[in-house]
Amino acid sequence: MTLPADADRLRADIEANAAFGRVETGDPDAHARTNQPGSEANRRARDRLVDRLRDAGLDVAVDAVGNVLGTWTPPSADPEAAPVVSGSHLDSVPEGGIFDGPLGVYAALEGVRAMRDAGVEPDRPVGVVSFTEEEGGTFGNGLLGSSVATGELALDEALALTDADGETLGEALDRIGYRGGRAVDAAAPTDEAGEPTTLDPASWAAFYELHIEQDTTLEEAGAAAGVVTTITGITHCEATIAGEANHAGATPMDGRTDALAAASEFVLDVEAAANDVVATSSPSAVGTVGSLSVDPNATNVVPGRVEAAVDVRDVEAASMEAIVEAARDSLARLERERGVETAFERPFDVAPTPMSERLREAAHDAADAAGREAIDLHSGAAHDAMRVAGVTDASLLFAPSRDGISHNPREWTDWDDCAAAAEVLAGALARVAVDE
Amino acid sequence: MTLPADADRLRADIEANAAFGRVETGDPDAHARTNQPGSEANRRARDRLVDRLRDAGLDVAVDAVGNVLGTWTPPSADPEAAPVVSGSHLDSVPEGGIFDGPLGVYAALEGVRAMRDAGVEPDRPVGVVSFTEEEGGTFGNGLLGSSVATGELALDEALALTDADGETLGEALDRIGYRGGRAVDAAAPTDEAGEPTTLDPASWAAFYELHIEQDTTLEEAGAAAGVVTTITGITHCEATIAGEANHAGATPMDGRTDALAAASEFVLDVEAAANDVVATSSPSAVGTVGSLSVDPNATNVVPGRVEAAVDVRDVEAASMEAIVEAARDSLARLERERGVETAFERPFDVAPTPMSERLREAAHDAADAAGREAIDLHSGAAHDAMRVAGVTDASLLFAPSRDGISHNPREWTDWDDCAAAAEVLAGALARVAVDE
Repeated sequence: MTLPADADRLRADIEANAAFGRVETGDPDAHARTNQPGSEANRRARDRLVDRLRDAGLDVAVDAVGNVLGTWTPPSADPEAAPVVSGSHLDSVPEGGIFDGPLGVYAALEGVRAMRDAGVEPDRPVGVVSFTEEEGGTFGNGLLGSSVATGELALDEALALTDADGETLGEALDRIGYRGGRAVDAAAPTDEAGEPTTLDPASWAAFYELHIEQDTTLEEAGAAAGVVTTITGITHCEATIAGEANHAGATPMDGRTDALAAASEFVLDVEAAANDVVATSSPSAVGTVGSLSVDPNATNVVPGRVEAAVDVRDVEAASMEAIVEAARDSLARLERERGVETAFERPFDVAPTPMSERLREAAHDAADAAGREAIDLHSGAAHDAMRVAGVTDASLLFAPSRDGISHNPREWTDWDDCAAAAEVLAGALARVAVDE
Repeated sequence: MTLPADADRLRADIEANAAFGRVETGDPDAHARTNQPGSEANRRARDRLVDRLRDAGLDVAVDAVGNVLGTWTPPSADPEAAPVVSGSHLDSVPEGGIFDGPLGVYAALEGVRAMRDAGVEPDRPVGVVSFTEEEGGTFGNGLLGSSVATGELALDEALALTDADGETLGEALDRIGYRGGRAVDAAAPTDEAGEPTTLDPASWAAFYELHIEQDTTLEEAGAAAGVVTTITGITHCEATIAGEANHAGATPMDGRTDALAAASEFVLDVEAAANDVVATSSPSAVGTVGSLSVDPNATNVVPGRVEAAVDVRDVEAASMEAIVEAARDSLARLERERGVETAFERPFDVAPTPMSERLREAAHDAADAAGREAIDLHSGAAHDAMRVAGVTDASLLFAPSRDGISHNPREWTDWDDCAAAAEVLAGALARVAVDE
């Protein structure tokens, strides 16, 4: 069974979607869009998706947090059977690229169309989903729609989140016509009292998300698709280092407690700890001090206080703990050796998420059948599949992305590469949607 | 000859001045004021100074950049003789202390009153000066009034400087009634065409500035006054370190060019270079990375670009060069070892300024005569005396300041310590104003 994706049809969908929120950068090699939840561009992107889902014969419903689900229930399928669903998101970071998110949504739709064109007769419905606010930064911290649908975040809490202008997510979704209870074709999900509620991924038989890799593993291997083994865990830590702000001219070197010099050792200690873990136990581990705020941050004042934010990720929880422990040890050492006072918090901690073995095998089988090379890799970035994996079998597939550039107008995946990855996705969906 | 300063009179002046721009901090031990050039508080502080100068029998003139000079020309003095002048500034940093600046202005006035009370008969006029915008941050980079008066900064350039609201210094001085050409008692300085111009410190026989130390040398030594040997030179350097911004999760440790990790080595290299110079050649040398700006400064992004500002000071030009050279070497090494691109600029460079031997001796003699301990030290901070020293003999004297705290509402010098230092200043002025 091969399910050739129609490269032109997929390209047309992604290009049409790229027009919503397009930003002209003046760079002929750049394709920028700003598509933030609640914006006019976001409404138009959603409207077009709904139209395209209906054009392909899917029944569309919008849930209480704006997640859009199209369901294909061909005559072969038991309408009551747990569906197989695939998708991603349509929102972008400001001046982001055109593939991050939309490839996964429209490749899922292309998968359904390819199945239908090839005469596949699934035993269960096949769904195409677009989750609200995956990127975060407008109303929340990302993975918003999938977090609500999987019970990680309460619906009322999500709807009360505000953007920079003070508008709530609920108000914004209302304004663009995507706040729940909106039955387009299928009944919108409601709770026992008849109130709009969210999609229920726990009731899905399987979930596949295709996404651009955002790194160069596939490009370097010349592979058509990546099959993610594990989405790394993520911990964010916040370190505060307090010294003593003093006149940079009048305070002798031996009379200083320089918070920035101490913080510099901390940055290098975190980097060294991550490198050590990579060299000795887990090559996928990463540790980053991504932000540093210096107070008072004046040329002529010895820095009095620094706040540093640390991002630690790995497929192995133990490696993450080793790096976090090294960060704590570094602060303790700096207290002893430099006389600074320090504080350490860990406000965000998500364990590594292994992907479903069954779905990974189906993806490899699909790639083999299509004559496409698929390789195993891990994902260092979080995606909606991470949330869905908490409630049902989930799989994350990657398409190559040029130079690994993403969240940037120069993000790019060749159209043939999009189609090849979509073909692997389609084959995997078909395998899982047909009972053995 | 002893010239006891009247501690109560000096205190009353400093306390009255502290009321202009007073800020309530809620801290009973704090005395905060915000007195920025052009503000209503600044106008009132200047008006009171003019009144107090006139009360003491001085002829007051205001120059084209708002510098205020009161001149005492007793019958014993030749009105045409080059005057001996002393003073400092009335402006403050936002929420600064009450001594930084005003002590030097009102101690100079107290010196004149003490001379008069003691029957001193100077051979030359004695002046009390208050320079405009010493602190900087409102219209310029500090030492503004003294820079214009000494020819370091052009008058029209200074008057065209704008504050955060876009008002020029010229307009601000006009608004508060302190833009040049204002003869209060004495003729305001004018050029050959009759246009308002500035005071001319080059025509002064000597200049003394008394200032709080802003460090703890005097406090630790239990000395009443510090006689500055040299005001350290100051260099400001700006280093830019460019790496590659990348996803903190998707970019493996060996695939990064982390600008912040590189910058952290730079910070520590600058610190180590300064410590090395202190240990081997010049104990007064300091090197500080006071500010660091990280881009994009997001927890989950490998930092792509860092800008660091370096402050280097010493009494020896060679030590300053050694630290600057070490900073350059550090960047070259980071380019080789970490693959970053770097840039280095040195936008500000002032050589060390030795103080006048003659005036230092007079200050020590005055301290000995008054039974006060005076010690030699250097100044790591710049003061108006640095500018005046470029055109005539200048001396900088320090009064002790508690815990070395300044630019802070907790800045404090005991009233008796103010009077003791003023007494040393008065004696020094009397010595220099009486020809041998």
